Amino acid sequence: MPLALYDTLTRRKQPFVPAHEGRVGMYVCGPTVQAPAHVGHGRAAVVFDVLRRYLRATGHEVTFVQNVTDIDDKIIIRARREGVPAAVIATRFTRAWNRTMDALGVLPPDVQPLATGHLLEMQELISRLLECGKAYEVGGDVFFRVRSFPGYGALSRRQVDDMQQGEDVVDADRKEDPLDFALWKSAKPSEPSWPSPWGPGRPGWHIECSAMAAKHLGHGFDIHGGGLDLVFPHHENEIAQHQAAHGDTFARTWVHNGMVRMGDEKMSKSVGNVVALEDAVERWGCGPLRLWYLSAQHRTPLTFETERLRDATTVHERFTTFLRSARRATEGVEPDPSAARRHVEAFHAAMDDDLNAPAAIAALHELVGDGNERLAAGGGEAPGAVVGLADALVALGDDVLGLGMEASLAGAADLESHLSTLVEGLLEQRREARDAKDFATADAIRDQLAAAGVVVEDRPDGPRWYVAPSSV
Amino acid sequence: MPLALYDTLTRRKQPFVPAHEGRVGMYVCGPTVQAPAHVGHGRAAVVFDVLRRYLRATGHEVTFVQNVTDIDDKIIIRARREGVPAAVIATRFTRAWNRTMDALGVLPPDVQPLATGHLLEMQELISRLLECGKAYEVGGDVFFRVRSFPGYGALSRRQVDDMQQGEDVVDADRKEDPLDFALWKSAKPSEPSWPSPWGPGRPGWHIECSAMAAKHLGHGFDIHGGGLDLVFPHHENEIAQHQAAHGDTFARTWVHNGMVRMGDEKMSKSVGNVVALEDAVERWGCGPLRLWYLSAQHRTPLTFETERLRDATTVHERFTTFLRSARRATEGVEPDPSAARRHVEAFHAAMDDDLNAPAAIAALHELVGDGNERLAAGGGEAPGAVVGLADALVALGDDVLGLGMEASLAGAADLESHLSTLVEGLLEQRREARDAKDFATADAIRDQLAAAGVVVEDRPDGPRWYVAPSSV
Repeated sequence: MPLALYDTLTRRKQPFVPAHEGRVGMYVCGPTVQAPAHVGHGRAAVVFDVLRRYLRATGHEVTFVQNVTDIDDKIIIRARREGVPAAVIATRFTRAWNRTMDALGVLPPDVQPLATGHLLEMQELISRLLECGKAYEVGGDVFFRVRSFPGYGALSRRQVDDMQQGEDVVDADRKEDPLDFALWKSAKPSEPSWPSPWGPGRPGWHIECSAMAAKHLGHGFDIHGGGLDLVFPHHENEIAQHQAAHGDTFARTWVHNGMVRMGDEKMSKSVGNVVALEDAVERWGCGPLRLWYLSAQHRTPLTFETERLRDATTVHERFTTFLRSARRATEGVEPDPSAARRHVEAFHAAMDDDLNAPAAIAALHELVGDGNERLAAGGGEAPGAVVGLADALVALGDDVLGLGMEASLAGAADLESHLSTLVEGLLEQRREARDAKDFATADAIRDQLAAAGVVVEDRPDGPRWYVAPSSV
Repeated sequence: MPLALYDTLTRRKQPFVPAHEGRVGMYVCGPTVQAPAHVGHGRAAVVFDVLRRYLRATGHEVTFVQNVTDIDDKIIIRARREGVPAAVIATRFTRAWNRTMDALGVLPPDVQPLATGHLLEMQELISRLLECGKAYEVGGDVFFRVRSFPGYGALSRRQVDDMQQGEDVVDADRKEDPLDFALWKSAKPSEPSWPSPWGPGRPGWHIECSAMAAKHLGHGFDIHGGGLDLVFPHHENEIAQHQAAHGDTFARTWVHNGMVRMGDEKMSKSVGNVVALEDAVERWGCGPLRLWYLSAQHRTPLTFETERLRDATTVHERFTTFLRSARRATEGVEPDPSAARRHVEAFHAAMDDDLNAPAAIAALHELVGDGNERLAAGGGEAPGAVVGLADALVALGDDVLGLGMEASLAGAADLESHLSTLVEGLLEQRREARDAKDFATADAIRDQLAAAGVVVEDRPDGPRWYVAPSSV
């Protein structure tokens, strides 16, 4: 069964077949760098990171392009408020975005194009639209002539007569039609501007993605992604700009993620109900936060609730605890991958069904349950099947879902190396106390370790200990 | 005494007076993003970071601009070797550069302009040079006419007849004079290119800094920085391009750092003797590495030797250990800044003398020695003077030199919170053993703690403990 993806353009779940076998080009709309990323941004980041990782894990070489909108009204407004140039705001929040993406375990894009780095490409595209009558210039502004493009509305399934661009009303008197949108905005006093064939100005928002995606991935690239809130007008306009100019396909598959909600509202900066993504990663950790993002299928809404984040933390601890136990119990044991096979298949079947991440996580729960049973049954002896299950958990949970379990064990190992001399010494004292039938001392030592967050498991072959996951 | 800086242009140490009181514009040449940063790059990064921090600490608002050269022969060559677009190489190493700078404690630039983001600005500057006869076009290439600019050679103090641009010899037959250098290079097959008034092509290396510095800092900005290896031809050409086009001053002060050597040679990728900067930060830590960079005055050469890095580590431990002891001993004590005054003055006097960092570090040694004496004399009682000294150490060592001492204590505190229950319990057991005259047990507990890297200091008011710095 190949991967099937729900395509917003055709409104169907359909088999995903890349234009060039084994190679996938993906473009995902990136941030407007005007403020720190919030939890809403993190969802698109994780969803498309997982799609990219899954394509890689199933044998595709993926070129992942994500732009940075570094010139925009909102950036200019913030710059004016702070009394600094717009480039200072853009530099600050581009850097912050990248840091937060690293913390969230999101693989960096192969190409991260800046809008200000593609002005010539945008101007070339605008010139082409003017030449073929799909755009018009009015005193230094250039607008796209929406009704000249017959396919307009195909992505959002809207009738042109029912649409609103949501664009600045100051342009209303200069446009032929309220539906038309800006491709190039003439320079206003005290705004950044660049020279162009139509006089100094700056690009409209939509033109950058059409120009940058085609430049870095070619025409008819495989997957265009973004949040559902971008379907109209942004993605509708991206398609119109490209297809009106070139006549060929812009992107072959359109994948959109649902919004993050806070109570009954979409989490967004304009609503004012945002939680900073950096704070969420700091509080919950990358793995639990990603598990929460993946706890709903990517097209449905997802509500930010502490209880659900706690659930995700519990799941992450369950997975990590199995992995830790398995790694300790199976040192030097040869892996036997056969036991993992049915879990791997269940995981793939779920992911192939339009990236059904909740079902894929359920498959990991089955895998961990299986592994825990085998560990318990072995009583200190763990078979190769446990190694196979642990390896599969890392391949699926870490490599595909990006849960960072093995990395969190390594972090704990650093801490453990400082503790181990003390803990081993205390366990030795407890053994001596027990041998001397001094159970009060033995129990006191056990309490002392528990108070320090050290969990001791007594096993037939001696005590095992680890730092409780929640205190790491 | 105001800050005096050695200016490469005038070959004199002279008082630094910004063009606009209280505000400083700094431009420092950034990386060509074709490979990971090495220890040589780290020196310029730390030197100009410290200059920026010192200007800030002395009441200046600094705008710090550092470019990224994201299109260049070396990037194209690497891209071809890997079979990926040049933009993939540029994106990868821009991200890596920023991560490594974060790890090295280098404050992010206020503006980080990309060469590909300033093609229009460069084209405007080239057009101006063509118009006034300082440049000429030959079949899609544009060259700067060096002998048309009378000031050429002023920065590097070279005679034009003794110079070589080191430019690609393939251009030799197209140039009027071998000394001329490329402003715009016509497109070669399979190379990235952009449209221009002279046909498709890409910019020469030198033009980007002239265009970006003037755009983001204006004409006649305060400080231009970079490595001594950039004086000729890069900085000489930057000046020529700007001044030939505009007739006014490009930059008011030129500050250059000396090279990092490895044995008898300059550390550089072309020599093949580089140590990855990321590895050096990982091995030595940000604070010790920065102390090593600052152990020589910034214009002199500095040799990478393990022994010197060990020395720097020892210095960092001495400073951090005093800070830890002072913070523990003085909780709740009101600071008395008067004792720190002479050390602060000595530090400033050193820094004002062309950023004499070794002398500034010597002033911190004096400060720490003074603080340690007062701690020892107090016997458990630490006066407000110790708080004042500790605060000054943070203000000078962390805020100005970027040594990250307080942050490293906070990191150790995280670790200590896990250890503390165990350690406090063991210290209690040791007290009981001593009270019972069971000195064997008491000594055994002390050994156990020492083996775990926990240092115990017995004081009149009871034991104090900390994790030995080298094991953090």
